[in-house]
Amino acid sequence: MTIVAINPPPRYFNVSSPAEYVAHVEINRPEKLNAFSPPMWSELRQIFNQLSVNPELRVVLISGAGEKAFTAGLDVQAASQSGSIKPDDGPVDPSRKATAIRRNVFDYQDVISSVARCEKPVIALMHGYSYGLAIDLSSACDIRMATKDVKFSIKEVDIGLAADVGTLSRFPKVIGGLTSWAKEVALSGRVWGADEAEKNGYISQSFGSKAQLISEGVKLASYIATKSPVAVQGTKNILDAAWGRTVEDNLTYTAIWNQAMIQSDDMRKAMLSGIQKKSVTFAKL
Amino acid sequence: MTIVAINPPPRYFNVSSPAEYVAHVEINRPEKLNAFSPPMWSELRQIFNQLSVNPELRVVLISGAGEKAFTAGLDVQAASQSGSIKPDDGPVDPSRKATAIRRNVFDYQDVISSVARCEKPVIALMHGYSYGLAIDLSSACDIRMATKDVKFSIKEVDIGLAADVGTLSRFPKVIGGLTSWAKEVALSGRVWGADEAEKNGYISQSFGSKAQLISEGVKLASYIATKSPVAVQGTKNILDAAWGRTVEDNLTYTAIWNQAMIQSDDMRKAMLSGIQKKSVTFAKL
Amino acid sequence: MTIVAINPPPRYFNVSSPAEYVAHVEINRPEKLNAFSPPMWSELRQIFNQLSVNPELRVVLISGAGEKAFTAGLDVQAASQSGSIKPDDGPVDPSRKATAIRRNVFDYQDVISSVARCEKPVIALMHGYSYGLAIDLSSACDIRMATKDVKFSIKEVDIGLAADVGTLSRFPKVIGGLTSWAKEVALSGRVWGADEAEKNGYISQSFGSKAQLISEGVKLASYIATKSPVAVQGTKNILDAAWGRTVEDNLTYTAIWNQAMIQSDDMRKAMLSGIQKKSVTFAKL
Amino acid sequence: MTIVAINPPPRYFNVSSPAEYVAHVEINRPEKLNAFSPPMWSELRQIFNQLSVNPELRVVLISGAGEKAFTAGLDVQAASQSGSIKPDDGPVDPSRKATAIRRNVFDYQDVISSVARCEKPVIALMHGYSYGLAIDLSSACDIRMATKDVKFSIKEVDIGLAADVGTLSRFPKVIGGLTSWAKEVALSGRVWGADEAEKNGYISQSFGSKAQLISEGVKLASYIATKSPVAVQGTKNILDAAWGRTVEDNLTYTAIWNQAMIQSDDMRKAMLSGIQKKSVTFAKL
Amino acid sequence: MTIVAINPPPRYFNVSSPAEYVAHVEINRPEKLNAFSPPMWSELRQIFNQLSVNPELRVVLISGAGEKAFTAGLDVQAASQSGSIKPDDGPVDPSRKATAIRRNVFDYQDVISSVARCEKPVIALMHGYSYGLAIDLSSACDIRMATKDVKFSIKEVDIGLAADVGTLSRFPKVIGGLTSWAKEVALSGRVWGADEAEKNGYISQSFGSKAQLISEGVKLASYIATKSPVAVQGTKNILDAAWGRTVEDNLTYTAIWNQAMIQSDDMRKAMLSGIQKKSVTFAKL
Amino acid sequence: MTIVAINPPPRYFNVSSPAEYVAHVEINRPEKLNAFSPPMWSELRQIFNQLSVNPELRVVLISGAGEKAFTAGLDVQAASQSGSIKPDDGPVDPSRKATAIRRNVFDYQDVISSVARCEKPVIALMHGYSYGLAIDLSSACDIRMATKDVKFSIKEVDIGLAADVGTLSRFPKVIGGLTSWAKEVALSGRVWGADEAEKNGYISQSFGSKAQLISEGVKLASYIATKSPVAVQGTKNILDAAWGRTVEDNLTYTAIWNQAMIQSDDMRKAMLSGIQKKSVTFAKL
Repeated sequence: MTIVAINPPPRYFNVSSPAEYVAHVEINRPEKLNAFSPPMWSELRQIFNQLSVNPELRVVLISGAGEKAFTAGLDVQAASQSGSIKPDDGPVDPSRKATAIRRNVFDYQDVISSVARCEKPVIALMHGYSYGLAIDLSSACDIRMATKDVKFSIKEVDIGLAADVGTLSRFPKVIGGLTSWAKEVALSGRVWGADEAEKNGYISQSFGSKAQLISEGVKLASYIATKSPVAVQGTKNILDAAWGRTVEDNLTYTAIWNQAMIQSDDMRKAMLSGIQKKSVTFAKL
Repeated sequence: MTIVAINPPPRYFNVSSPAEYVAHVEINRPEKLNAFSPPMWSELRQIFNQLSVNPELRVVLISGAGEKAFTAGLDVQAASQSGSIKPDDGPVDPSRKATAIRRNVFDYQDVISSVARCEKPVIALMHGYSYGLAIDLSSACDIRMATKDVKFSIKEVDIGLAADVGTLSRFPKVIGGLTSWAKEVALSGRVWGADEAEKNGYISQSFGSKAQLISEGVKLASYIATKSPVAVQGTKNILDAAWGRTVEDNLTYTAIWNQAMIQSDDMRKAMLSGIQKKSVTFAKL
Repeated sequence: MTIVAINPPPRYFNVSSPAEYVAHVEINRPEKLNAFSPPMWSELRQIFNQLSVNPELRVVLISGAGEKAFTAGLDVQAASQSGSIKPDDGPVDPSRKATAIRRNVFDYQDVISSVARCEKPVIALMHGYSYGLAIDLSSACDIRMATKDVKFSIKEVDIGLAADVGTLSRFPKVIGGLTSWAKEVALSGRVWGADEAEKNGYISQSFGSKAQLISEGVKLASYIATKSPVAVQGTKNILDAAWGRTVEDNLTYTAIWNQAMIQSDDMRKAMLSGIQKKSVTFAKL
Repeated sequence: MTIVAINPPPRYFNVSSPAEYVAHVEINRPEKLNAFSPPMWSELRQIFNQLSVNPELRVVLISGAGEKAFTAGLDVQAASQSGSIKPDDGPVDPSRKATAIRRNVFDYQDVISSVARCEKPVIALMHGYSYGLAIDLSSACDIRMATKDVKFSIKEVDIGLAADVGTLSRFPKVIGGLTSWAKEVALSGRVWGADEAEKNGYISQSFGSKAQLISEGVKLASYIATKSPVAVQGTKNILDAAWGRTVEDNLTYTAIWNQAMIQSDDMRKAMLSGIQKKSVTFAKL
Repeated sequence: MTIVAINPPPRYFNVSSPAEYVAHVEINRPEKLNAFSPPMWSELRQIFNQLSVNPELRVVLISGAGEKAFTAGLDVQAASQSGSIKPDDGPVDPSRKATAIRRNVFDYQDVISSVARCEKPVIALMHGYSYGLAIDLSSACDIRMATKDVKFSIKEVDIGLAADVGTLSRFPKVIGGLTSWAKEVALSGRVWGADEAEKNGYISQSFGSKAQLISEGVKLASYIATKSPVAVQGTKNILDAAWGRTVEDNLTYTAIWNQAMIQSDDMRKAMLSGIQKKSVTFAKL
Repeated sequence: MTIVAINPPPRYFNVSSPAEYVAHVEINRPEKLNAFSPPMWSELRQIFNQLSVNPELRVVLISGAGEKAFTAGLDVQAASQSGSIKPDDGPVDPSRKATAIRRNVFDYQDVISSVARCEKPVIALMHGYSYGLAIDLSSACDIRMATKDVKFSIKEVDIGLAADVGTLSRFPKVIGGLTSWAKEVALSGRVWGADEAEKNGYISQSFGSKAQLISEGVKLASYIATKSPVAVQGTKNILDAAWGRTVEDNLTYTAIWNQAMIQSDDMRKAMLSGIQKKSVTFAKL
C-alpha cells in the first residue's frame, strides 16, 4: 500500500493510498483507544489541509487503528494536564479566562472544520468506541459507515460540558434536523448502536466486521473516484453551502459556481463516454 | 408526589414532581379531551416561564389527564365565542381586523414559544387524541414519546386555516425537513399513528399503555437529571440556535457560549466522577 | 377526462383534469423516455405559471407517459446540439462564456422553480427511469409517490457536472438534511429504488403498478382538494418559507400571512361543517 | 395637557398627550439626571406595551424632565447595590453566575426592545446629558432630534463593559453602518455633540433650546398623526423588518403585509382626499 | 442619436443611445407628469430585460421627458379604474381579495426588480416631481443624480398605504440604514430637495438645469463604459449581493464569482494598457 | 520607540510601539509606493495574527512608510510574474484554472481578514496613494483617518477585475450602505480625496500633514488604550457581528458574550474609578 506523503510526517496517523485516487487516514493510537492527545489535533489539521489540495487524490477515508475503537474521544487526562479544555493555571479573572477558553475552542473547532473544508469527499469508517470527538469528527465527514458493533455517544455531557468543537452544529445537519431521537441522544449522552444510527440516518451502511467495513469503504471511495472530480467536488461544495441558507440563495450560488465549472473538459469527456459506453480518464484536480 | 408551586396556582394544569429534579405538567381538562379554552393559554405560559428558571428542576414532562387525549387541540367552540381566533365583533375594516388578528396570533405563538424557550429540556408524553394544538405544543418540546394508540393530526386545515401558532415553523425542524410525508400530513390534515410518527422521527419511542409511557418518561427525565445541568441546558440551547443558521454561525455561537460555561465546577466534578466511577452531585442551576 | 386549457397548447405535455379541482400534467415524449428537449423547458414553465393561478384547480399531479420512465432527464444529445448546456460556438473568452452559461442556468432554474412556486400543491407520480432532471423536478414538488420499480439517480455527476437546476438546493430540504445516504447518492450518482427512497423520506408511498400509482395519486389529490384552498395553499406557502430561516422569522411570517387569511369565509364554513358533520363547498381560489 | 392613563400609574415617568393622537413620555427623575434606577425599567416596558396598542394614539414622543439631561444612563450606584449589573452575592461558580447575568441582560434588552416594538412611531427628543442607556433607548426610537447643547456618549466602555441592552445592535442600523466615526465613538466612549450627531445621521434636526425641541417634536408628531395610521405603522414595521435581511426577503414580507393592509378603508379615503384637496379622518388603529 | 431597438417597441418610453455603449431610457408621458399608467409597467420590464443582456450596451441612464417631472408616481386615477391597486370588483372574501392583491404586488415588484437585476449599471437622472414610484424606481438604480429643483417624496403614505414595490426594501440600502432622516421622510411623506438628498447620500451629485444633468449623466456613463465590462458588471453584482448578508458570505460569493471572471482577456488588456498608458478596447459582454 | 517582536521578523513591515499598549505597523516598501509584492501578504497575516493575541497591546495603528503612499495597491508587475492573480502557466482547462484561482483568492482574502479578525481595534492612518489593496486593507480596519492630500481609489476596475479580497464586501459596511456615491466610486474606479471620504463616512478625521496624522493617530490609540480592554475588545467584536444579521440575533449574541465578560474585574475597577475620579489600571488581555 502506498504511503501518502504528509509534511512533516504525522506521528499519530497513518496516511496511505489503498486504491487509485483514494487516501486512507488511520488514527493510530490504539493503545489509548485512539483518544486524542494535544499534538494529534494539529497533525489532523495538517493532514486534511494537504489532502484537500492534493491532485493525486479524489476521496478520503478515515478510520481508527486496532480492534477496539474509531476513537474514544478526547484524551481527558492528557487534556486536563495540558490545560487545553479548562486552563486552571491561567488568569483568575473570569473574563480573561473566557478569552483564553474562546481562543482554544476556536482553534479546536478549526481542526474539525479542516475535515469539513476538505475539497474531496471524506468517508468515516467507524467501529468500536466512537465517543465524543468521534461524533464531532465524523459529523464533519460526508458519508459515515460502521460495523454492527459500533458504540456511538455524544459523550461531552458526561464530562460536564456542551459539545463545542462541532457536534451540536453539524449533527442536526447530518441526521435530518432536531428530531426527537437527536435530542434524546444529545441530552442524555447515552450510547447507541449501528441499528439506531442507520435508522436515523447517521450512517448509511453497516457491516459485520471491521475488515469488511474497510473493504467496502475502499470500494465506495474507488467508485466515486472514477467520476469527474469537477462534478464530485462541486457537488460536495454546493450541498454543504445549502445548509442554513434559503433555496433561492443556494440556487444563485450554484449558478455562479457552475458558470466556471461547466467549462470543464470533463463534461465533454463524460458525455462522450456515456454515449460510447467507454470508460474515461479525467484530468487531475 | 410533590406539588411544584406555581404562582398563582393554575386551574387547568397539575404541576408535580414525580422524581428528583423532574417536573410533570399535566393538562387537566379531561372532560373536554384536554381541549384548550382561552384561560389555559396564559396559564401554560406562566407555568413554563416559572419552570424555566426554577433551580430545583432540570427536566420537564408534559402529558394530558384522562385516558382519551393528550389534547384534542383548540376548544373551537370556546374560541369562537370569545373571538380569539376570528374576532367578528371587532372592526369591519379588513386592515384593522388584520391588526387585531396579528396581535392575537403573536400572543398565542408566544405561549407556545414559552415551552420552546424553557431552559430545561421538555419531554412530551402523548396518548389518544393529539390534534392541532397538540402538534404545535409537542413540536416546541425537545423529545416526544407516545402510546401505541396515539392519534396525531395537523388538524388546522380542517377548520380552514394554516396552522399558525408554531406547527408549520417547528415541524420541519423536528421531523427532518420537508419530506414527502411531512407535506402529505400537513396538507391533508389526515390522522397518523405511532408507527408513522416513529418512522418519520416525530417520536423516538412508543409504549403499550399510558401508564408505561409516563413511567418511561419519568425514567428518561430522571436519567437526564443526573447529568450536569450546565451541560444539558447548554446542549439544548446550542442545538436550538443551530436551526436556520449556518454551521459557521453556530460554531461561533457555541464558542461564545462555552467561554463562560467551561468555567463551571461541573466539569471538574464530572471528570473526576468519570475517573473514580463515583456518582456526583451538581449544584443547582 | 377533461382537458385543462393551456395557452398556447403545449406539444410535449398533456394537461387534463381526472377529478374535480385536480390537474394532471403528463410528460409526453415516451419514445425518448420523456427526456427533456429544449422546447419542453419553456412549455413546462408556461403550464405551471398558468395552473398556479387557475381558480378551477387545487392540486396538481405530474407523471410521465408510457411504461418506461417518469423522465430519463435532460436529452443530452439535443441539449449539446443546441448549446444549451455548454455553448461551444459562443465566446472564447472564459469570462464571457461564463456569462452565457450563468444566464442559461438561471433560466433553467427558473423553469424548475415555477413548479416550486406553484400556489397549489404538486404531487409527483414517478415510475421507471427517474434520472437527473427527474430529481430536480420532483424535489420541487410537495409530495412524491412512486412505483416499486422506479429507478432514481442524481445522474448529473455522470455527465461531469454538479446538478445545477435545483437538486442540490432542494434535495437536502426534502429528504431531511445532508444525511450519510444523501451524500452517498449525490456524490456517486448511483441508482436507488423505491425502498431506499421511502426509507430516506424521498417518497411517502410506493405501489405495485403505474396504474395503481396514478389512481392513488388522484385519490390523494382529490382528498386534499376537498379541504379549504385558503388553508391548503397557506400551509404550502408557510412550510416552504420556513426552510433556511429561523423559527422566529417563520413565526412572524406566519402571523403576517394569517392576519389576512384568517378573515376568510372558509373558517366559518369549515368549523360549522366540523360541528354539523356536513360536507362543505369552499369558494374558488 | 391630557394625561394618558397607564395602569398601574408609573412613578418615574409622566405620560401625557400634548396634541391629538400624540403621546409624550417624560423620564421624570431630574434630581438624578433622569438616571435609571431598577424600578424604572419595568415601568418603561409597561408604558410602551400599552401605548403600542392604544388606538387613541398614533405617535409617541420621549424626552427627559428638567434642564440637565435626557438621561445620564444607568444609575450605576443603585444598579450595583441591587446586583442588577453584576450580581456579587449570587452563585460563585462562573457558569451559574453567567446564567444569572444572561437572564438579567435578556430582561433589560426586552425593556429597550419594547420601545422598538411599539407599533407607533417613537420620536426621541434629547437634550443635555444623553449617556449610555440614552443611546440604547434612542437607538430603539424611529426619529431622534436634539438641542444644540446635547452631550452624547456610548458610555458603557467607561464602566468596563460592552454596551449590551441594544446600542451595539441598533447603532449600526440607525447611523448607516460601521463607519469610521461609529467605531471611533463606540470604542472610545468619548462625548459628541449635536453637530457630529447630525452630520453622521444620528439625529435629523437640532434646535437652540429644549422648549423649541419639544415644540418642534410635537409639531412633527402631529403632522405624522394626520396620515393614515395603517400606512404609517405599516411603513415603520416593514422598514424595521428590512435590516439584516436581503432585499428579496423584505419584498416578500412587504407583499404579504400589504395583502391585508391594502384592503383598508384608508386608501379610498386618502385617494379621495388627495383628489378633492380635502382633509380626511381615519379610523383608529 | 441612435435608437436602441426594443421589441415590441414601447409606447411610453424612448430608448436611445446618446454615446457609445450608453443607453438612455426616457419616461415619455410628460402631459401626465410621466405618471405610470397600467401598460407602462410591462413596457418598463421588457425594456430592462432586453437592455440587461444587450452586448452593445454597458451603462443605462433613465430620466423623465419634459420639464416638470422625472415621474409623479403611479397614475392613481388610472390605477384605481383598472383595479390594479385595490381590486374592488373582485372577490368579497378578504382572503381571496388578499390573494389577488398579493399576486399584483409581486408582479409590480418584479417590474421594479427588473431595473435592479439589469446586469449593466443604471443611473437615474431626476428632476422636478419625483414622487412615490420615482423613489421605488430610482432606489433600484445604482447611481442617482438630480437637478437642484428636484422634489422627492415617499408619497405612498399620502394614499394610505406602505410603499410596496421596493422603496421600503431598498431605501435603507441606498441611503445608509435607517437613520433618523430616513425614518422622518418615510413616515411623514414630506417633500425633500436636492440638498437633503445629497447630504443623506440619496444622490451623489446635483446640477443647475436638466440639460446639464443629462449631459453630466452621459459623461459619467461614458466614462464607466470605457472600463472593462467584466470588471464593472462584476462589481455591481457583488456589491448588491452583499446587502443583508454577512461579510464572510459575501467574501465566498466573490471568490466563486471571480474563479470564472479572472480568466477574462480584459485583465491582460487592462494591465497592459495601464503599463503602456494606452487606451484599450474590451470585447462585448 | 520600542520594537514589537514578530516571529520570524517581517522584512517589509516595521512593527513598533509608539506608546503604552499601542502597536504601529508600518508598510515599508516606500521605493515601490508600498505596493504589495507576494511575500508581503503572508508577512501581514503573521503580524496581525500575533498582535491579535499579544497581551501587551490594546490598539494597533497601520500606516505606510515614506511621503508618497499608504500603499499603491498590489504590485501588479510582481503579481503577474508570480502568477498570483491569474495563473497562466497552470492548467488550461477553465474549471481547473478556476479551482487554482479560487484557492488563491480565498488565501488572499484570509490575509485581509486577519486584520478584521484582530481582537484589538485597528486604526488606518492613510496618506498619498491609497489605491486598490489600500481600500481592501483599510476597510478591514475599525477607524480610518487621513491626510488632506490622500488619494483614494477602488482601482481594481482599472485592471479589469471586480475587487475580490475584501473591498466589495466591507465597503458597504464601513461607509453606510450602497449609497449613490459608493456605487459611483466603485463602478468608475475614479480617484477621491479626503473631503469626499469624510463626507461619506469613510474616514472620520483628516489632517494637514502625515506627521500630524501619525501623532493624532497615536493620541487616539493611547486614549482608547486607557479603557478596559474587556470593554473595548468586546465592543469591537459585537459591532462586527451585527453586520448582515438581524437586531434580534445580535442582541442574543451580545447577551451570550456578556454572560462571561460582565464577570470581569474591570467593571468593579472602572465603576470605582468613575466614582472616585481616579485613574485605573486594567489587567492585560
